[in-house]
Amino acid sequence: MTDDTPPPLPDHDWPDFPPGLVWLVGAGPGDPGLMTLQGLHALRLADVIVHDALVNPRILDWRQADATVEYAGKRGGKPSAKQRDISLRLIELARAGKRVLRLKGGDPFVFGRGGEEAQALVQAGVPIRLTPGISAGIGGLAYAGIPVTHRDVNQAVTFVTGHDQSGLTPSALDWQALAKGSPVIVIYMAMKHLAQITGELLVAGRDGAEPVAIVSNATLPQMRVLETTLARATEDAAAHGMEAPAIVCLGRVVALRQVIDWMGQLGGAPVRCLDPLGTGDPRQVS
Amino acid sequence: MTDDTPPPLPDHDWPDFPPGLVWLVGAGPGDPGLMTLQGLHALRLADVIVHDALVNPRILDWRQADATVEYAGKRGGKPSAKQRDISLRLIELARAGKRVLRLKGGDPFVFGRGGEEAQALVQAGVPIRLTPGISAGIGGLAYAGIPVTHRDVNQAVTFVTGHDQSGLTPSALDWQALAKGSPVIVIYMAMKHLAQITGELLVAGRDGAEPVAIVSNATLPQMRVLETTLARATEDAAAHGMEAPAIVCLGRVVALRQVIDWMGQLGGAPVRCLDPLGTGDPRQVS
Repeated sequence: MTDDTPPPLPDHDWPDFPPGLVWLVGAGPGDPGLMTLQGLHALRLADVIVHDALVNPRILDWRQADATVEYAGKRGGKPSAKQRDISLRLIELARAGKRVLRLKGGDPFVFGRGGEEAQALVQAGVPIRLTPGISAGIGGLAYAGIPVTHRDVNQAVTFVTGHDQSGLTPSALDWQALAKGSPVIVIYMAMKHLAQITGELLVAGRDGAEPVAIVSNATLPQMRVLETTLARATEDAAAHGMEAPAIVCLGRVVALRQVIDWMGQLGGAPVRCLDPLGTGDPRQVS
Repeated sequence: MTDDTPPPLPDHDWPDFPPGLVWLVGAGPGDPGLMTLQGLHALRLADVIVHDALVNPRILDWRQADATVEYAGKRGGKPSAKQRDISLRLIELARAGKRVLRLKGGDPFVFGRGGEEAQALVQAGVPIRLTPGISAGIGGLAYAGIPVTHRDVNQAVTFVTGHDQSGLTPSALDWQALAKGSPVIVIYMAMKHLAQITGELLVAGRDGAEPVAIVSNATLPQMRVLETTLARATEDAAAHGMEAPAIVCLGRVVALRQVIDWMGQLGGAPVRCLDPLGTGDPRQVS
């Protein structure tokens, strides 16, 4: 499953990975190249890798030859492993003297329950280390040509999750305040309750014509991007068969995809508009 | 400045870096190990690297032996290079047939003006590629033991910048709505206007006793973390000489540092509290 002699990383003071430690690592949004150098370093030293559903299997191929792999994933709405069971398993492996890599999609601390796992481990006296990852709400949108901030659009961006603790509805959110406070809103795990979420935002006063992007399988070869509006998002998502995992972005930054869809352009797509925000002479620097 | 024969990255379908292309890469918050694999791949192929002030010089050491390095940074409040000049320089280098790496601290699309640079390049007909980076507001806080989300605290987190377009004040933000909508608020470039920002949040109804963390030089050996409260943040920051670059985090997630300050714990610090949120039996999984 891996090279016999994995090539070394650059010269650097890489952290130790002593037996009995659990290293929580964010694998990033999907593209294996978006894992960090430190994540690869940890992966190459781990005895056991406990990963969730959103970790790209190609990343697991980079482990050392005799490392074992355990799946401990969840799926939205239908947990296939309880959080408590995952934490207990990590503790068990650490106490058995393993170098335990807990590999999670995206970033462990962005709607990833990494804080809960870290706390459970410390409570059990297990030493931990943490390596953040690229979160899909930033890096996934970047692959779609959408910057989550732009000086002419927003000084604030809000990330929300479309599932609450019960996995049912985003009911604990103050949608009125969110809609008013943040010109750009990025929603994780939004597909299941997309109608409710877009409805809340419309009731809260956001313009139905405001641009929305839905990015599924962000950064992977099968990535799909749907550009729509707040009013049409639910209907369009269904019509185009957009499925989880997906990131939804609301705000004028979505329009920038018309000029900086770099992936499409590298594939031969034309630039659709040189100045989608209408903020300057598009030829000022040509 | 670099090894004669840089070691290869793992077997992977790494993207091309043709002459004349500008590759925008996020270098992450400071620790060189937090750059992505793809970022290192690009760095090893680049002819010219144009970097800003927050890029760790140790990352630059990983470039190929004959690559040149140009500084095009800005400092808060006192731009040392105008955005337009930076874009023009990138265009000039690309048109000269160079493989141009534009290396920015953090993530290019999170308060990093990457969107503007990307747009200027596309307007000039220069092909671009983008690799996101770990943003300090997520990864920097993770190094301080603070998760920006936790199921028991928040389903929303808002990132704001403490500088607006003029570099003066965060005047365009609706602090009332932000304060109401987001249990956790992360502020980039907050030090210059810290008194004003904390004042706005207090006026908007946030509790003065709410925990605040100020993390300067996040993820670097000289990282410093100050735990304070919203009411005392400005005074404490001055008393402790906290300086930019710094990330400020407001919200109950800051309390989790008492249990998951993994860096401190690896250095021998005791766990201060096993259950700082008071949400469960701290021995439930021991």
